[in-house]
Amino acid sequence: MKTLIGVGVGPGDPELVTVKAVRVLRESDVVFVPVMGGPGPESPAAGRAETTIRAHIGPERIRRVAFALNDQGGLTPRRTSAWQAAASEVARAFEAGATTISFGTIGDPNLYSTFSYLAQTVRGMVRGVSVETVPGITAMQDLAARSAGMTGAGTVLAEGGESLVLLPLTGGAGALRDALGQPGTVVGYKLGAAAGPPPEEVRRLLAEAGRLDGAVVGSRLGLEGEDIRPAAELASLPAVPYLSTLIVPARREGVGSGLARPDGGAR
Amino acid sequence: MKTLIGVGVGPGDPELVTVKAVRVLRESDVVFVPVMGGPGPESPAAGRAETTIRAHIGPERIRRVAFALNDQGGLTPRRTSAWQAAASEVARAFEAGATTISFGTIGDPNLYSTFSYLAQTVRGMVRGVSVETVPGITAMQDLAARSAGMTGAGTVLAEGGESLVLLPLTGGAGALRDALGQPGTVVGYKLGAAAGPPPEEVRRLLAEAGRLDGAVVGSRLGLEGEDIRPAAELASLPAVPYLSTLIVPARREGVGSGLARPDGGAR
Repeated sequence: MKTLIGVGVGPGDPELVTVKAVRVLRESDVVFVPVMGGPGPESPAAGRAETTIRAHIGPERIRRVAFALNDQGGLTPRRTSAWQAAASEVARAFEAGATTISFGTIGDPNLYSTFSYLAQTVRGMVRGVSVETVPGITAMQDLAARSAGMTGAGTVLAEGGESLVLLPLTGGAGALRDALGQPGTVVGYKLGAAAGPPPEEVRRLLAEAGRLDGAVVGSRLGLEGEDIRPAAELASLPAVPYLSTLIVPARREGVGSGLARPDGGAR
Repeated sequence: MKTLIGVGVGPGDPELVTVKAVRVLRESDVVFVPVMGGPGPESPAAGRAETTIRAHIGPERIRRVAFALNDQGGLTPRRTSAWQAAASEVARAFEAGATTISFGTIGDPNLYSTFSYLAQTVRGMVRGVSVETVPGITAMQDLAARSAGMTGAGTVLAEGGESLVLLPLTGGAGALRDALGQPGTVVGYKLGAAAGPPPEEVRRLLAEAGRLDGAVVGSRLGLEGEDIRPAAELASLPAVPYLSTLIVPARREGVGSGLARPDGGAR
């Protein structure tokens, strides 16, 4: 019985992994972690997933695999070969006798993760392999909680009958504009990516939709250099770190106060 | 310094809490947990949050507060009084000397949680109270992972440039129909609620949109009586447990195969 487990390790803070993730990582024969970069001779630094995992297990079973994604999260021919190489490493570890192999991924393995591509490739290579995943905290959730320092009580993502749209900003300004036209919460991923609208354009779209108040942007959550600020400040930045997250709360009666105001009074 | 912390404890499986949540619960002077029901004399059973928390801390600091939500997650006058009573209990615990009080909530405290209402009310009662939250795994993420038993590899919520819409089905069939008309993933919460469309209507809407394949429904995730099945089986059920979750994966080339098929071959 061979099992490949995609383990979500959260957004970067080593405490934001689940008890199950820690157990699964400790019980795995091999734990693969992604490092960015090609298959070349450069020696990449530990990625976020590896740093989090090293806080919970010893280094002896951790192995790095190199690959990269483009701004759309899609695979170019060069990157497809990197996927093949990574999957081949996993297949070799199974051949060498491993029965349980984990692959650590930031955030959640089923939400904009690199894991689904890897699992697909491994399934084509290793007969009878079983694929599982362990959920992880996403950047959206972490930013909602961490923005308490800015707003006084965090950012409520959705409550009551509100809807929430999650979209990568690499799709361009149109999808963001459409989402802002609806009353629900809008969460944008990958703000700052070259393929997406520039930060000052995002700020303008929010202002035009009347949704700048309460909107927050965050990057490097839980890590050195963490940056959380009102989206209103976007225009004044020379650039935004890649992988920034944007939360635009649902239209509510009284920004930041929530749909329901049980006390009926002022904050 | 008085701090009220909303702690997400995940969907029900005691292992799906974060390391941070366990630490915060252990360091709190008092840990409140919700029990459903009015303020009457009945003695309610432990709720999901309490069951999860009892797996990690002793019972001596756990205190139950009673309240209820309607299908919209909104507050009726009767329920508003229950909120006031719950907030008053928290305020009394601060007055009695507690400096750190946790409130355990299933899922994530910023996503369709009862916590935002409570925090709002407490802030109106306790001068200078600081409000924080600790993120938790949501039912959507847990269902995506647990459906591996049904699909062989779980349900990918979103990858690459795909968007995802999350909506409570208590808003009626219209919002679901609109969301299904877009190509992105649709996640429906509270399937089976009296205020929402009946399960057979949900199944019909999915079929009409050509999106029944790959859609999954789950309830009581990680608990006794867990029920995960294809959405195609919805019509054959006499009823669906309240708080069921529906995932309709994004339109992809080859259902369940993911956008990218690096090997270009059959599964």
